[in-house]
Amino acid sequence: MPVISLEDVRAAAARIDGVAKRTPVLTSRTLDERTRRSVYVKAECFQRGGAFKFRGAYNKIASLPPEVRKRGVLAYSSGNHAQAVAIAARLLGTTATIVMPEDAPAAKLEATRGYGAEVVSYDRWTEDRHAIGRRLAEERGAELVPPYDDPLVMAGQGTTALELLEDAPAIDVLVVPVGGGGLIAGCATVAKARRPGIRVIGVEPEAGDDTRRSLAAGARVRIDVPRTIADGLQAAEPGESTFAVNRELVDEIVTVTDAEILDAMAFLFDRMKLVTEPSGAVGVAALLAGRVPGGETGVVISGGNVGVARFAELLGGR
Amino acid sequence: MPVISLEDVRAAAARIDGVAKRTPVLTSRTLDERTRRSVYVKAECFQRGGAFKFRGAYNKIASLPPEVRKRGVLAYSSGNHAQAVAIAARLLGTTATIVMPEDAPAAKLEATRGYGAEVVSYDRWTEDRHAIGRRLAEERGAELVPPYDDPLVMAGQGTTALELLEDAPAIDVLVVPVGGGGLIAGCATVAKARRPGIRVIGVEPEAGDDTRRSLAAGARVRIDVPRTIADGLQAAEPGESTFAVNRELVDEIVTVTDAEILDAMAFLFDRMKLVTEPSGAVGVAALLAGRVPGGETGVVISGGNVGVARFAELLGGR
Repeated sequence: MPVISLEDVRAAAARIDGVAKRTPVLTSRTLDERTRRSVYVKAECFQRGGAFKFRGAYNKIASLPPEVRKRGVLAYSSGNHAQAVAIAARLLGTTATIVMPEDAPAAKLEATRGYGAEVVSYDRWTEDRHAIGRRLAEERGAELVPPYDDPLVMAGQGTTALELLEDAPAIDVLVVPVGGGGLIAGCATVAKARRPGIRVIGVEPEAGDDTRRSLAAGARVRIDVPRTIADGLQAAEPGESTFAVNRELVDEIVTVTDAEILDAMAFLFDRMKLVTEPSGAVGVAALLAGRVPGGETGVVISGGNVGVARFAELLGGR
Repeated sequence: MPVISLEDVRAAAARIDGVAKRTPVLTSRTLDERTRRSVYVKAECFQRGGAFKFRGAYNKIASLPPEVRKRGVLAYSSGNHAQAVAIAARLLGTTATIVMPEDAPAAKLEATRGYGAEVVSYDRWTEDRHAIGRRLAEERGAELVPPYDDPLVMAGQGTTALELLEDAPAIDVLVVPVGGGGLIAGCATVAKARRPGIRVIGVEPEAGDDTRRSLAAGARVRIDVPRTIADGLQAAEPGESTFAVNRELVDEIVTVTDAEILDAMAFLFDRMKLVTEPSGAVGVAALLAGRVPGGETGVVISGGNVGVARFAELLGGR
């Protein structure tokens, strides 16, 4: 019995319809020439909150029984999941508490508060965020929205592939960034159900290849927190549910270096006019580095949350 | 008898169908909140060659009689028009000669040559590009493709508004960047024919307000070549044909400062994940500066050709 099915993703699609954006699928002749194939780029940088995360967060919160939902929701995140939960909670008429390290970038704290969430900060060197989260959840009766290891979150993320396959129905290869594995679990569920012969390729930063190692070992492997510019892909270990899906459905994991990620960000900026965060660009990085098997290819740009200053710092010297 | 009609734009749309990109129309709740209206952003940064210019160049070259077209085409431009003519010529099986100043950015020379054009450079301080162009046109029998002052070029640019009105049929206001006036002439022709009550607002850089002055004077006014970061809008005088259209159909010209353009570029990067060149961002700059009358609004982002290094130089200090 699989953790999630195509039907779960279809149900998620119905829930997010008219609320999440239907993001465009873009093409580039230069990208096609460089990678010797037709490539369809699903641009989740245009999603609400700037990343695919809104899909899963909204699907989860919309699925809570009303009496649970009204007590509020809770998430730990300093990144895109925080903003996604904050936006989804507001849209669904409930409150969000986001537990964030006190040294999180001011812009992210601002953005999360700007979406109406309460931010509870903690000292990441002396305090345990899980303990804080559990205490807050108990005190407030708030429901935890996990960033990936949850069937409703995975099903929500899978709507990305549902839309991509509607716009590019003949793809032979699907390339998806891998952090905790929620996006690829949802997308692989859709892709393998709709096109059984498709190859699903995950991409991890070279330093953060916990899912690659786990698939090789046949069991979840924990690594040190990876040092990479792809801050959204710093998971040290695959999720339990996500790994249960991905071990069945993901064909291969390839890795990219930080330098390759920067090349891809510059390519996407210069040639496709897309703003991508490092984590968002890993799929295109793998394609440009020649690491993805051939055939008509769909690739997910997972997010675009990189500020102007950070972007200039990363790429200004080129 | 108007210079161009809706029918000319429809004919252009049929010519470019399947060749030009149908660029997406994007929305942003933050932009709506900041401007207190619904805004539909037509993102021509995703057009072939990175700007709307391909529409007009292709329409012009595709309309040449075969015996004329086969002798090749010629353009003067150091910017987006050069690349557009080069791409369109190659697609239509002819040769393009582009006359560019020898101190044009190396990246632009490269890109234009990369599209298969022959670049003839000249010293802009001692040589007259028109004389060079005339001589080359005579020697080669090549046909000049003007950047804006041509009915077929204007009609091609008008397809931008045709698509925008299909995706956002209820707009009350249309905001368009103004350089030589070709884009707004084509767009205004469509907008006024399809929605007679619509207000068409042009946007110029404050230092380059030749069309604003010309409309006020009722005749074309020539100004000094403007100093502005919006290098695509440095026309010193409106075109003859474009002005004939725009004096009838444009309701108002508003201006924006370079600082306002930079604010808009940063906003578009941070909040909408769009790469825009300074000229491309003037419409959103005018909206954010509160200079556009209210009502549901369509705005054209005319292009995204700004390199990573230039972008970082302009905005890295933020």
